[in-house]
Parts: sequence; structure tokens; C-alpha cells
Amino acid sequence: MHANRDLPEDFRHRLEAILPGQQVLAGQEDMDRYGHDETEDLRFPPQLVALPRTTEEVAAVVKLCAGHHVPITPMGARTGLSGGALAVNGGLGLSLVRMNAIVAIDEQNLQVTVEPGVITQVLQEAVAEKGLYYPPDPGSRGSCTIGGNLAENAGGPRAVKYGVTRDFVLNLEVVLPNGEVIWTGANTLKNATGYDLTRLIVGSEGTLGIITKAVLRLVPLPKKTRLMLVPFRDPQKACEAVSAVFRAGITPSALEFMERDAIDWTLRYVEGVNIDIAEDTMAHLLIEVDGNHAEELMRDCETILGVMEQYDCGEVLFAESSTEKDKLWMMRRRVGEAVKSNSVYKEEDTVVPRYHLPALLAKVKEVGARYGFKSVCYGHAGDGNLHVNIIKGDMADGAWKEELPKAIREIFTYTVALGGTLSGEHGIGLVQRPYMDIAFGHSQLRLMRGIKQVFDPQGIMNPGKVLP
Amino acid sequence: MHANRDLPEDFRHRLEAILPGQQVLAGQEDMDRYGHDETEDLRFPPQLVALPRTTEEVAAVVKLCAGHHVPITPMGARTGLSGGALAVNGGLGLSLVRMNAIVAIDEQNLQVTVEPGVITQVLQEAVAEKGLYYPPDPGSRGSCTIGGNLAENAGGPRAVKYGVTRDFVLNLEVVLPNGEVIWTGANTLKNATGYDLTRLIVGSEGTLGIITKAVLRLVPLPKKTRLMLVPFRDPQKACEAVSAVFRAGITPSALEFMERDAIDWTLRYVEGVNIDIAEDTMAHLLIEVDGNHAEELMRDCETILGVMEQYDCGEVLFAESSTEKDKLWMMRRRVGEAVKSNSVYKEEDTVVPRYHLPALLAKVKEVGARYGFKSVCYGHAGDGNLHVNIIKGDMADGAWKEELPKAIREIFTYTVALGGTLSGEHGIGLVQRPYMDIAFGHSQLRLMRGIKQVFDPQGIMNPGKVLP
Repeated sequence: MHANRDLPEDFRHRLEAILPGQQVLAGQEDMDRYGHDETEDLRFPPQLVALPRTTEEVAAVVKLCAGHHVPITPMGARTGLSGGALAVNGGLGLSLVRMNAIVAIDEQNLQVTVEPGVITQVLQEAVAEKGLYYPPDPGSRGSCTIGGNLAENAGGPRAVKYGVTRDFVLNLEVVLPNGEVIWTGANTLKNATGYDLTRLIVGSEGTLGIITKAVLRLVPLPKKTRLMLVPFRDPQKACEAVSAVFRAGITPSALEFMERDAIDWTLRYVEGVNIDIAEDTMAHLLIEVDGNHAEELMRDCETILGVMEQYDCGEVLFAESSTEKDKLWMMRRRVGEAVKSNSVYKEEDTVVPRYHLPALLAKVKEVGARYGFKSVCYGHAGDGNLHVNIIKGDMADGAWKEELPKAIREIFTYTVALGGTLSGEHGIGLVQRPYMDIAFGHSQLRLMRGIKQVFDPQGIMNPGKVLP
Repeated sequence: MHANRDLPEDFRHRLEAILPGQQVLAGQEDMDRYGHDETEDLRFPPQLVALPRTTEEVAAVVKLCAGHHVPITPMGARTGLSGGALAVNGGLGLSLVRMNAIVAIDEQNLQVTVEPGVITQVLQEAVAEKGLYYPPDPGSRGSCTIGGNLAENAGGPRAVKYGVTRDFVLNLEVVLPNGEVIWTGANTLKNATGYDLTRLIVGSEGTLGIITKAVLRLVPLPKKTRLMLVPFRDPQKACEAVSAVFRAGITPSALEFMERDAIDWTLRYVEGVNIDIAEDTMAHLLIEVDGNHAEELMRDCETILGVMEQYDCGEVLFAESSTEKDKLWMMRRRVGEAVKSNSVYKEEDTVVPRYHLPALLAKVKEVGARYGFKSVCYGHAGDGNLHVNIIKGDMADGAWKEELPKAIREIFTYTVALGGTLSGEHGIGLVQRPYMDIAFGHSQLRLMRGIKQVFDPQGIMNPGKVLP
């Protein structure tokens, strides 16, 4: 990794000419603020931060940087969990948060055009007012932005029924690393016209260009939901129950897994949520179904209950009001924050075919026992996506630094052997980059590096990320 | 376009050493047979045809070709409609039809692993026996192969609810143009690990590599369907009704549009289908809903009927038995064949945001009137995907050759202006290649050419396709 180089003489002056009026930040406090995201305690301050308001400004800034070989780190709300928005080589932090317009909600075509700085929940609420639904909802939906969701191919609980961010993108306006502005595709549901640049940009974590506009697909807002919390004495049984639900012909709109610790820590951390948990409960599934007809959902719930009982569940709690639903969801959404609040930690975002979840969970615990760390696991079990929070606790600093990467390597190697991979929805960014060789061989990495080279021959766009 | 060059001395002998026992064809009759697909009356015979049975054989054949700069045209069932499988530069036709194993149906994870030569309908029926569903169903599903579906990102009627082929692909085994074998991703529903090579291969029409295995996602098979045929006096009203269905909160499992001519020609062409069509009926919508509960579907149908009545529909025909459903679907599926059976034709695969369908249809007719051609239009209206069959009829040969491309250019230019694009599901292949500049500017084409170069620096893999 390069140390920060001095920015070219006159660079800041020229940047301010492109972005007049408080759109360039340079103070140490600002650099510190823009130097971290939600990934562990990592700090990589940029040397300057730009806050453009238009695509034209972004293009001009990128051209300026390209002309001076200044690295650019695109940034949204900096809620990322893999360090994708960290300016590891210094240079310019390019924040898109001021480009936060919902440009147009197209009710005729069930589409919405947005700028990248729109907060995910703001978008969801705006389209819900029109009876429409944008399902991808990462845990941080109240603060994260659509641009970051696109860059990381974010998921969230509803992906199990509706798909991830990738599945809702129709077309992207992108500023390329040379400052050219393109649209990647068309505003259509189907497209068999040339290589799929749209889905190449989605999940590329800001390394191929900067998304400045997105056309997203919407669906009709389901009119009803049912939500249930199912306790299990045995976490393995909970995991096994997950794939049985789908085999019974039901596709829930959410199917979340939480170890007992995840809930306990959250109940201590989040005010206003109170759930009685039996002594012997060791895991929960949170299951939601949605649709337009109450009776249909009732029948789906009955089918699900029948499945759960086969896996030795405890007494099921049905949320009877929207307040109760909100409470259960608040508990689920804040697990990550709660678990991380009282120790140094590392979070892995493992994903496997869903039936292999019990095997993955067992492996995580076995590796933890061997290396001497505790882990709290939870996640989108319906997608086979298990967030593994490794808690430092009393582990010695030396072991944390030297031994833990070996343990993580063991977990990832097993994950890949199960047909899984390193990240389901958090991206590779900075922190998973050393493990990319587990998921991909020389040939795939050569292709990815070649693609990077085609888009960004100078290597100025979010350098130091994704590719090892 | 290059003329066929003589194959290198000894090439055939070495090919036969890799593929012993009737796996290499060289006779003129065979070359003629492998020299066409279902695109107009185009004929481009390869110089040799290889019929490998394993990934290892494919890799060895590709290495041999790479070593001798022999062009490779990957082929499936050759049912394509854009000329993607035509050996325009001669060389080797590499047919995957003998690699037709359903390797494993994974009922625990709702996945299936297949070889590329599996016929789509064969796959659908095999998984249906386990209560599972693979929704993508191109019109040619009874003869087309999964490999071709993947290469073209095929769609079909059910895409409107379930998505296109791309949306069901988890992971691909691909032989690269240098003979290396890779897996593109992981067998997981979510994946945020590096650039999305999987979806770059899907829809790349055999220009980046040869798909030798695919892991596909399945969903629970819906237990019930309802199917209705809705006549309209005014085709414009039929188109307008389409987007109103979604705005009413219903996502049908199929929503197909057919002009009167499309049905008339089909009824004359296909035996055993008989439908009374009122004198003044000028278009039909074929609408299907699916789900697990009959009453729910009944209510969805009532909602749809309410919408249709607002657009001046005639008397709706409900299919009352599975035989009736099969007949209506047979009629719809054979429209393409029927329309093409009695004239020279060209088929365009335009796609727009669905609300713009009436505008697109009007434009097609206006351009036709001006240039003097008749057109028969039908397609996947729910996706905004309109197949425009331009009928030569009495048009003079000179005008057909010189003037028609201008007319097509006008239609495509308008399509793109509506936010649409050249192809929804047939691909660009050979015949739409001259129009790519309408959908993409210099920058996007430069990126696509760069990607092609990364995968296939020699340019041996399906040369002359997709990129102008």
C-alpha cells in the first residue's frame, strides 16, 4: 500500500474552482470523519474531500484527478462493513451524499430514478406512498445510501424472496475513471443487448467508476405481512428448519437466524424491546411472510408452523400489531450494533447454499474453540448468509493479530468447500481482500484484473480494494 | 468478414485424436445442417463440427483451436433468432448437444446442476417431478438448450413474474478461449465477492467462453394457475391495459400480447386449436396468474377483469381445464413459427418500459406504412418486450435490401428514445450488430471491446458477433 503522496501543487485550488462554495473539505477533523466507515476501528483519512452536487461536477473532478494521478475513493454514508470507502492511499474522498434527489417515481412503469446519495429507507418510504415497494433493505437502511448499496450489491432480510440490489437495477449512469459519462443499459426489465455492464458495475465496490444515477425496478407493495419469532433449544435444529420451509413450498419474505447471545446482547443494548426468552432457548428464527390476502398468509404460517414443530421448536410468538412487528424488526436490525458495542470484533459475511448452514455454524464454533475466540452468529438464514461476529474478548493481542487470520482462513476455506463464498452482501473491500485466493484461482483473478485495467488503466479509482 | 481460410494441415486429424469415435463431422450435408439456426434464411456452414461429451474434451478442443487460430462457434440446438450460432468465419462449429446430463437436482438447496445441452423443457419436467420449478421458458423450450438460453439470456412468458435466465444462474463452469476451465462464482443465492463474472458470461452469446456446466436456482412449483384470453377491439387499449394490471397490485405469471393477425395465422397453421374470434377483435392479451391457493388466484383474476373492463375489452375466455390451458399456450408458443411460415421476414425483439408499448406499436405501424411493409406484432407485453415480425410480402427485393434497414433503424432509434433497447431476449448475434451504435455510444462499445480482449485476445471465440 502506498503512503499518501503530497497532492499536486494547485490541485486543491483547481478542485475548488470546479466545486465552489463549501464543496471541498480539507480540515483535519473532516478528514478524520471521512476516514472511517463502520468496519472495525479502521482509519484511513483522505487528503481532501469533495462533495459534488451534479454528474457534471463529478465528471470534472474525476478528470482533474485522472490528469494528476490522484486516487479517488467514492463514499456514500460510510456504513460499509468491509472497508470499501476507506481512502487507503489518501488522495480524494469523493462523497456522493449531496446528490440525494429522488429524480422521478414512474408509477406507469414501476420504476424510480435516483441519485446515489438517497438514503435507502427514504426511497422505500417515498415509493410506499405510491403503493410501490423497493425491497432491498440492508440493516443500515436508515442511514446507508443507494449508491453504496449498488456498489456492494447489498442484500438484507427481504432478499430471500425478492432478490438483492442487483436484481432491482435496470440502468446506471456512471462516471468512468477517465471522466466520461455513460449509461450502462436501458430502462427495461429484459435486456439481451451486449455485455451486461450494469451488473458488472453493481458489486464492483467503486473500483470501476462512480454511479451518479440509477434506474431501479419497483414492485407492487404487498398489503399484508405476518411475522413470527420461533425459539429453538438447538441452534443446529433451527438451521435445519430453514431449508425445510422452502421445501414445503413456502418462500417467506424474511427468514432470519439469531443465536441466543445475539438476542441477549441486543435486549441489553436496545431500549424498549422486551422479550421473554426461556432458559433453554439457544437460537431464534424470525420469519415473515407477505402478500395481499390475510387468509393466504395465515395458511402459509400454518404450513411454516408445521415445519418448525418437526425441528423441536419452542412456543412461537406471533407479532399481533404493527408495533410488535416493529419491535421485533428493531431487535433484529440492531443485533450487529449491539454485538459490536462491547468488544473489539471482526465480522465475516459467509454465505453457503442454505442447507449447509448447520455445517457452517458447527465449523465456526469448532474453529473458535480451537483458536480460543467466542463468536456470535446471526443473519439471513433463508439465503444461507451467516454473519459471524468474532469477539476479541480476552484473546491476547498477539493471537488476535497473528492467529486469527489463520482461523478466518479455515472458516472461509470450509465455506468455499460447501459451495459458498466469502461475502454474501458486505463486499470484499479492504478487509476480505487477503482471502480472495480462497474463492478464486489465478484465472478468475486474471480476468478481474483485466476488467479493472479496461475501465481504469491508471488505477486511480478506489485503489487497494477487492482484488489482491 | 473474413472468408473461410483453409484449416491448418493436420487440424482435423488432431481434432479426431481428442474426440475419437464419430465426434467430428466433416461431410457437406452435416456442414449445411450446422450452418443455420432459426434466423431468417441465413446459411454459414462451419468447416468442421465437434461434438464433445466432457468439459475436458471441450478444453482440449479449444486449446487446439487457440494454437492454430481457428475460429470457434459454440452451438446448442440452433434455435436462436439473432444468428448467434452461425459460423460466419467458418472454422469449427462446437456443438454442446451431447453434453446433456442433468448432473444433480439438489432438493435440499433448491438448485440443479446441468450440462449445457439439456433441453429446457426436459429440465423443467425433471424438476417439476420433485415439486420444483425452473421458470425461464423461451418459446422454443421444447427444443432449445440451457446453454443457448444462458448465452442469449433468454426470457419467455414467465419472466414477467420470475425473471429471465440471468436471474436463475448461480454459478457457471466456463472453458475460456485459452482452454482454461473456471467456475465463475459460487452456488449461493447472494454473492458480493469480486466482479460478477457469472452475469458477464450470461448474455455474452458465446463470445467470451463456452459454458460447460451451470448451477441454476429453482423455486417451489406453484400448485395452481389460472389462464384467461382477453380480446380487444383496439390494440392500443390492449397495450394500455398491460401496465394497469401491475398498478392494480397484481404481478401475473404471464402477460402476453398478440395482434389479431398473429392469432389468425396461428389458427390456420397449428392443428387442433380452435378459438372463436369476433369480427371486430383486433388484439388479445393472454394472462396467467399462479400461486398455491385457488381462491387467491380467483381474487387476482377478478382484479384483473376489473382492469380489463376499463380498457374496453370483449368477452373474456377462461381456460377451464388443463387441456384448454395447453391449447391456449400452444397457440401462443407457435405464433412465431406460424407468422414466419408464409413469407420472407425479419424479426425484431424490441423492448421498452411497459407503459410505452402502445407508443412503440403505433410507431412500428407508422414506419411500416411509410416504407410499405406489413408487420405482425406479439410478445411479452408484461415485460414491454414486443416481437415485431416484418413481413416481406410483396415488397420489392431492392427495397427489402436497401430500404428496410433504414426502417429498422428508425424503429430502434425510437425504441431507445423511449428508454428501451434493441433486444429483450433474442440477443444481438449477427443480425442486430449493425444497430448496436443506436443503443450504445463509443464509450460503452470501447468497454465491451476491452472486455472481449481480456477474455479472448486472439478473437477466436464466436467472431463476428455482438460487437460492431
